[in-house]
Amino acid sequence: MKKIITFGEVLMRLSPEGNKKFKQANLLEFYFGGTEVNVGLSIANFGEPVKHISCVSNDFVGDTALSYIQKFGVSTSAIVRSPRPLGVYFLEVGAVMRPSSISYNRSHSSFSEIKPDMVDWEKLLPKAKWFHWTGITPALSQGAYDTLKAGLVIAKKLGIPVSTDPTYRSGLWKYGKEPKEVLTDLVSYSTIFIGGINEINEILGTKYGYSNDEFIEASKLLMEKFPNIEKVFDKIRTAINASWHKIRARMWNGIEFHETTDLDITHIIDRIGTGDAFAAGLIYGLQKYNDGKAMEFASAACALKHTYEGDVNYATVDEVTAILEGNISGRFNR
Amino acid sequence: MKKIITFGEVLMRLSPEGNKKFKQANLLEFYFGGTEVNVGLSIANFGEPVKHISCVSNDFVGDTALSYIQKFGVSTSAIVRSPRPLGVYFLEVGAVMRPSSISYNRSHSSFSEIKPDMVDWEKLLPKAKWFHWTGITPALSQGAYDTLKAGLVIAKKLGIPVSTDPTYRSGLWKYGKEPKEVLTDLVSYSTIFIGGINEINEILGTKYGYSNDEFIEASKLLMEKFPNIEKVFDKIRTAINASWHKIRARMWNGIEFHETTDLDITHIIDRIGTGDAFAAGLIYGLQKYNDGKAMEFASAACALKHTYEGDVNYATVDEVTAILEGNISGRFNR
Amino acid sequence: MKKIITFGEVLMRLSPEGNKKFKQANLLEFYFGGTEVNVGLSIANFGEPVKHISCVSNDFVGDTALSYIQKFGVSTSAIVRSPRPLGVYFLEVGAVMRPSSISYNRSHSSFSEIKPDMVDWEKLLPKAKWFHWTGITPALSQGAYDTLKAGLVIAKKLGIPVSTDPTYRSGLWKYGKEPKEVLTDLVSYSTIFIGGINEINEILGTKYGYSNDEFIEASKLLMEKFPNIEKVFDKIRTAINASWHKIRARMWNGIEFHETTDLDITHIIDRIGTGDAFAAGLIYGLQKYNDGKAMEFASAACALKHTYEGDVNYATVDEVTAILEGNISGRFNR
Amino acid sequence: MKKIITFGEVLMRLSPEGNKKFKQANLLEFYFGGTEVNVGLSIANFGEPVKHISCVSNDFVGDTALSYIQKFGVSTSAIVRSPRPLGVYFLEVGAVMRPSSISYNRSHSSFSEIKPDMVDWEKLLPKAKWFHWTGITPALSQGAYDTLKAGLVIAKKLGIPVSTDPTYRSGLWKYGKEPKEVLTDLVSYSTIFIGGINEINEILGTKYGYSNDEFIEASKLLMEKFPNIEKVFDKIRTAINASWHKIRARMWNGIEFHETTDLDITHIIDRIGTGDAFAAGLIYGLQKYNDGKAMEFASAACALKHTYEGDVNYATVDEVTAILEGNISGRFNR
Amino acid sequence: MKKIITFGEVLMRLSPEGNKKFKQANLLEFYFGGTEVNVGLSIANFGEPVKHISCVSNDFVGDTALSYIQKFGVSTSAIVRSPRPLGVYFLEVGAVMRPSSISYNRSHSSFSEIKPDMVDWEKLLPKAKWFHWTGITPALSQGAYDTLKAGLVIAKKLGIPVSTDPTYRSGLWKYGKEPKEVLTDLVSYSTIFIGGINEINEILGTKYGYSNDEFIEASKLLMEKFPNIEKVFDKIRTAINASWHKIRARMWNGIEFHETTDLDITHIIDRIGTGDAFAAGLIYGLQKYNDGKAMEFASAACALKHTYEGDVNYATVDEVTAILEGNISGRFNR
Amino acid sequence: MKKIITFGEVLMRLSPEGNKKFKQANLLEFYFGGTEVNVGLSIANFGEPVKHISCVSNDFVGDTALSYIQKFGVSTSAIVRSPRPLGVYFLEVGAVMRPSSISYNRSHSSFSEIKPDMVDWEKLLPKAKWFHWTGITPALSQGAYDTLKAGLVIAKKLGIPVSTDPTYRSGLWKYGKEPKEVLTDLVSYSTIFIGGINEINEILGTKYGYSNDEFIEASKLLMEKFPNIEKVFDKIRTAINASWHKIRARMWNGIEFHETTDLDITHIIDRIGTGDAFAAGLIYGLQKYNDGKAMEFASAACALKHTYEGDVNYATVDEVTAILEGNISGRFNR
Repeated sequence: MKKIITFGEVLMRLSPEGNKKFKQANLLEFYFGGTEVNVGLSIANFGEPVKHISCVSNDFVGDTALSYIQKFGVSTSAIVRSPRPLGVYFLEVGAVMRPSSISYNRSHSSFSEIKPDMVDWEKLLPKAKWFHWTGITPALSQGAYDTLKAGLVIAKKLGIPVSTDPTYRSGLWKYGKEPKEVLTDLVSYSTIFIGGINEINEILGTKYGYSNDEFIEASKLLMEKFPNIEKVFDKIRTAINASWHKIRARMWNGIEFHETTDLDITHIIDRIGTGDAFAAGLIYGLQKYNDGKAMEFASAACALKHTYEGDVNYATVDEVTAILEGNISGRFNR
Repeated sequence: MKKIITFGEVLMRLSPEGNKKFKQANLLEFYFGGTEVNVGLSIANFGEPVKHISCVSNDFVGDTALSYIQKFGVSTSAIVRSPRPLGVYFLEVGAVMRPSSISYNRSHSSFSEIKPDMVDWEKLLPKAKWFHWTGITPALSQGAYDTLKAGLVIAKKLGIPVSTDPTYRSGLWKYGKEPKEVLTDLVSYSTIFIGGINEINEILGTKYGYSNDEFIEASKLLMEKFPNIEKVFDKIRTAINASWHKIRARMWNGIEFHETTDLDITHIIDRIGTGDAFAAGLIYGLQKYNDGKAMEFASAACALKHTYEGDVNYATVDEVTAILEGNISGRFNR
Repeated sequence: MKKIITFGEVLMRLSPEGNKKFKQANLLEFYFGGTEVNVGLSIANFGEPVKHISCVSNDFVGDTALSYIQKFGVSTSAIVRSPRPLGVYFLEVGAVMRPSSISYNRSHSSFSEIKPDMVDWEKLLPKAKWFHWTGITPALSQGAYDTLKAGLVIAKKLGIPVSTDPTYRSGLWKYGKEPKEVLTDLVSYSTIFIGGINEINEILGTKYGYSNDEFIEASKLLMEKFPNIEKVFDKIRTAINASWHKIRARMWNGIEFHETTDLDITHIIDRIGTGDAFAAGLIYGLQKYNDGKAMEFASAACALKHTYEGDVNYATVDEVTAILEGNISGRFNR
Repeated sequence: MKKIITFGEVLMRLSPEGNKKFKQANLLEFYFGGTEVNVGLSIANFGEPVKHISCVSNDFVGDTALSYIQKFGVSTSAIVRSPRPLGVYFLEVGAVMRPSSISYNRSHSSFSEIKPDMVDWEKLLPKAKWFHWTGITPALSQGAYDTLKAGLVIAKKLGIPVSTDPTYRSGLWKYGKEPKEVLTDLVSYSTIFIGGINEINEILGTKYGYSNDEFIEASKLLMEKFPNIEKVFDKIRTAINASWHKIRARMWNGIEFHETTDLDITHIIDRIGTGDAFAAGLIYGLQKYNDGKAMEFASAACALKHTYEGDVNYATVDEVTAILEGNISGRFNR
Repeated sequence: MKKIITFGEVLMRLSPEGNKKFKQANLLEFYFGGTEVNVGLSIANFGEPVKHISCVSNDFVGDTALSYIQKFGVSTSAIVRSPRPLGVYFLEVGAVMRPSSISYNRSHSSFSEIKPDMVDWEKLLPKAKWFHWTGITPALSQGAYDTLKAGLVIAKKLGIPVSTDPTYRSGLWKYGKEPKEVLTDLVSYSTIFIGGINEINEILGTKYGYSNDEFIEASKLLMEKFPNIEKVFDKIRTAINASWHKIRARMWNGIEFHETTDLDITHIIDRIGTGDAFAAGLIYGLQKYNDGKAMEFASAACALKHTYEGDVNYATVDEVTAILEGNISGRFNR
Repeated sequence: MKKIITFGEVLMRLSPEGNKKFKQANLLEFYFGGTEVNVGLSIANFGEPVKHISCVSNDFVGDTALSYIQKFGVSTSAIVRSPRPLGVYFLEVGAVMRPSSISYNRSHSSFSEIKPDMVDWEKLLPKAKWFHWTGITPALSQGAYDTLKAGLVIAKKLGIPVSTDPTYRSGLWKYGKEPKEVLTDLVSYSTIFIGGINEINEILGTKYGYSNDEFIEASKLLMEKFPNIEKVFDKIRTAINASWHKIRARMWNGIEFHETTDLDITHIIDRIGTGDAFAAGLIYGLQKYNDGKAMEFASAACALKHTYEGDVNYATVDEVTAILEGNISGRFNR
């Protein structure tokens, strides 16, 4: 059975329990995350076969990362090992008007040492039915950029659908490359663009506003400049405060505009990985449903993710579908 | 001093801490519960003498269940032991639009082996001032049904008030009896009916709607068919989502209709056992207050239960009364 | 560098995790608190030099209290030791309509044994730039009252700003002194009055209502009777329930009245010490900003404290300032 | 059924998990203990009916203490309440050459306020078959001494067996009475003396050494001076270090000397309450077995207690008996 | 690559942390275990490909069991699902002279419902290089016996090595079959017998003693009666107490007798699954080493398992080998 | 008051609770450590004034490290901050024959970026009474080596005692310098050499054996080559296994040889930092006692450290002295 491939860094996430500050804690909960593996694990929870490709440390921390990924039934057979340590991120979870804080220790991580010859794309991609990447990867190191690009070139050649969340994060990009140039290059190999006005403006150098009309115009221009792109999906978050958000989504597929209604997340458990849950929902949905339903599915998946601890969306297809059918009143499943 | 008697299965409840999935956890919190023992323990917290009657395993798990019940000052002297294991239920607690999930391991439990000759109703009931049962018990096994019925016959003969929450749960009832027939039989021995339109329709085979008018009509018909029933109490839950509910109640006592206003539970801690807290509040209230005040008390008790972890309502009479007096702003008790 | 001095009892706080009752717990979280040390530690988190003066037990509990205070960089060099145990308070945290409960074990604590000759005010106060006290201290024992008064007399002589939160708590005051008389005496040495209508009425024997006009009138009368007082600050809490509050503040400085808008705390983590966070914010703010901005700062600090576990406000100046600039949507700090 | 009565202070025990120092912890485990209630609860685990008499705080801490005692099936109906706080002790658990440390906060506790008119010995003792007290109680306050004495006088009159562990702890005895005089007075009402050379020397003012011959001589003299005493039991602890002890016991009953062999406790879990487990074993054993077997039972019970966390011996009669039968190899009970 | 196949029930293990009694706990740690899956997971930690075959519940508990197995890289693709609950066992861990206690809730578990047509042995076994079973499986139900036998018949036909640990546990065997007869039948299909004098006597109806000479004689007779058996391995445990054991092993392979020296396990962490670690070590070792070395490897693996929490041996081949090379002094691996 | 100065990296230590593997855990305990700061914090627990000099990250992890150090009353005023992350080490704690494992993430840490101009030795050392360094620091980076050397040059000039634990760890030293050459250079500035035969052989290029005679000879040669060295102290560890060690020490001070007897640590809690506890004991002891007593004190301090969790020795002078006086039987400190 052909697999969905996700490619990117696996990080260890360490955070005090609940809303404690590091200064107050002497225990840390840990999970493994990273935007692309989050997408992969969340898709696996929808029952799809997934392979994650990465480079992790060859110590017991790396062993634990592999165990963690295998737990979800995701293949780790193409993950390589390195003597460098696994990247780590530390998280303090906020509440109400207190924002969450994140501190990274990833700049010399095992993944940043990845090189094109460590991933055998020629062998892996013919067994793939989807490829997903994000803007974090090319921001990490020349080797990460090169390895990703090598994969994208082959994916395009093979006609595999390629989705991207081209997140631009200014705190990365320390190895000397220009973000705009690199992202422009890589986006040109992608078919599904998961991003909003900010990402489009970043890539096109434009200044579109947030209205639906401007979103459509921006999408059109993007698709003009990157003819490989077939669909643009945008998730919109309205934050009442750090504990209470609303989520909705909109899309332009070259023909139609669609928009969902707000989902009201009155008591957020964990918002890390909610964007990844949206991407995972889309990748699943676009294989099963029409574009509008796929986006509704992704939006509900994203909303549900706010109720799970950790980076991964544990929701199953049935659980997401129940939201779409309006079952949000929290009756027991017995 | 005469005791309130509750009769039913004691289950072990096992759930990950907070909102974790089983797949994420390696620790489970445990409590003991079961709708009837929940009622008994909650009444004991109001200061009333209670005896719970059941059958638990004769291993250290059963020992622990007895310890747990004794902690509340509830008598366990009529609880018998069996070589079968205690029933267990597993719980994953949801949030916002994610529903909670429950999985049971109770079908060959120690309680399901109970037989009429294991409970000496002739000796126990003359020392009782109230008897409470629910529709779960006759759904479990022929022995459970027979044992319950043996008690109800004597309770009726002795003129002891009998309350019932005739919950119909379709996942049970596997031993070959017809729910409607059995519940109809047992309800006829009861004086206080704690249930809404769904339960009445189930028993009468009617199709009443949810309006107050239909509730009164349904109650009248119920009391006509079951002349032993003196009062009908209905608790109404409005679920904004799994974390935010509103609670109100209404009643018909053959003469008057009463209705409470909504209590707004903006941040639910644990909704398991909230219906049992309502029943416990009623059983306490009907002994101390008029019917309307009893229902107000029960409704406030139910609302308060949402703020306690576990199956039991820890609220005292003073704490419930404070709600009735409008003290819901959370000032400290020093 | 001159220090801010806080003087008062250090208590050990013990509470079950989350919203558990003591009866449900077998683990207790502990923190150290007490209104004055809370103020000191919270100011230290704003980067100011602070010295706390107190008397703690000379056992490993007292050692731990000193460690705890030192962790924040606050000087403990003037804290004396006593063979009496440290005061303790037990806390059960409520939710929604369930209030929190507190039980104290402090009446023969190490601090209640403090005597004027145990604190060398003559040496300490010349190195101070601010002195803060509350109405709890003189309520504890004659020795505590005498020691505080000895300090206030010198502070006034040296012209050091003196802030007071003259909280009147009726459960204390067991050593024979009349609260009104004592507080009146001590308030006369203070320059900043942090308290509302209730505290003013208590001290003046008046019956002002809660309107802004009455607040201004009451403040004027207070400043007339206590000419040392330069400014009056009042924090107003609107409690929807125990989990959801709104906070605002108002002030009269003899010339101007100011008032802030409500800050909406939709998901309270811990409300203990939020009044102390307001006082700490004021003490910091009045040294850096004009009176109105100082009050805005204090009000935002108070709101933020609701999101930290324990008694201390961990917010930094940058974090409080971000609230004032309207950043309350909970974006990550990366 | 007649009950065994234990009388004494109930303390809350608070300690960091494992071997942590207070300075390292932010969570404390809590239990309730106190030498006499430990004896009572341990006897209850042997299946005997027990009533504990005490005075506890009338707050939620006292409520929790009562729950804790009830859990073991021990009657709390004669426990009175006081507005004073429950006594507390803090414990840091050592290991190997590091001793454990204890700090008390009990000197103004609820129990120290007990007065003879708070315990209705006239009503309680006729329903008793045994009375147990220790030297801690008369050390706490005049009221505790008076209340104990009032009970002993009646117990003697009724001919109820009275056991005592006349522990002399110099850190107590702060209310002005002379320990030797008080203990001498109270021991004269006792029939079973549980104590070694140190306790006998303390009471008689003698200087006996630790040999068996001197133990017999000392016991004879004790029984001469206190003709009420029928039997003397001595538990001997050999400490290799804080983690590894050996336990044996010896006795003189006026006729025979007996001695057990060493029980080797190679990995101590918790040594608090092991002396109380010995006393509980004796009280149980003397009712069921001859003196020698009773001592063997007590010694095995004491050894087993070292393997349970907390103050209470959870061992059942079957579990103690298995040790006596030589089953110490740790095979599973399935 | 051909896989090692293990077949048997997967149980959920629930135990209080550390040495707590259930009565003392409100949290339980959980693992998944069962003698055959323990063997499979432990072999996987040696780097061998393993497939476990079983039947688990189709609820979130069963989902979690699958996740747990996958974490070790063991294939779950042949595990079937059933509406019956997963079997559970409760464990209280003893220490020193206190034995551990186990209570089972497995008699109507999902696995006990397994039937021959649920496992496609014809398809699975040709891809297998080893098959392992134990005497627990045929003790559970007729279906389990039949399913196992169906596999053994094919394994024998295919000439796959078959190891068995024919544990006889008298508490099981409730479905009407005679243990001796069944075990005799099944052992005849096995090539490696992992068991001692007790198991041999049980099967042969003999009364051999524990000496090496009698072990050799018994093994010879066993191999005479069951010509399929090629090798007999016996692990000998000397228990000083529940916290301190010594382990050694001996073997007879038809030609040679070998014996290891004692390994001294002075501080046991968890002894559950140590026999399974021995079996896993043997299955691994017999594929890589000569019989003597395989037994040394198995014995060291067994000893190491006592230092891991849970049922699984986490030791790698390098870690076991280090013991064989005499590195037992606990130097750090950095 | 003059301070003892320690200089070196501060690492975050992360390990699962108890003896769990990372693969089994989802919580990690954290401490801060590093050989030099361990020495400093342990000396502070003896009541001496200490200043630790280092470079930590300028994020909330670094803030927490500072808090941690301040808790012990150790000055952090000369610790600088860097945008690089704090070094981390991961620890799996072994038992019996299972060794502990450590994995480092420190090679691009904040400390490795330290440069001589970041520490103002000219200002700091005149206020110092002792300076301690180890062989870890010059192994980390050129900047760390240069900064250390700059301090040593001034310390020698000022005649401040300099102790060194010249540990050679081959896994470090990646920046291109030759260990032997660097250590030789730095040792020449030191007065107290804390190390055994291995360290001496490493520095001198000799092959001495472990006998006392060879130790004396080796020490003589060392002191000949490095005339600044006045005393050599060697701690000898005999490991029965990972849970049970014995510790003794020996010394040569140019005149006398001394040797302690073994201290038997039968149940190790945590062996990390025990060498640092020895060094801390020596630094304290050499200021208070003669050389022999100083070594006895250090050896007892080292033994005691095995009973504390984390990297720091919490023992006070009284607690160490009690060991020297033979109190190792674990009587309570009340």
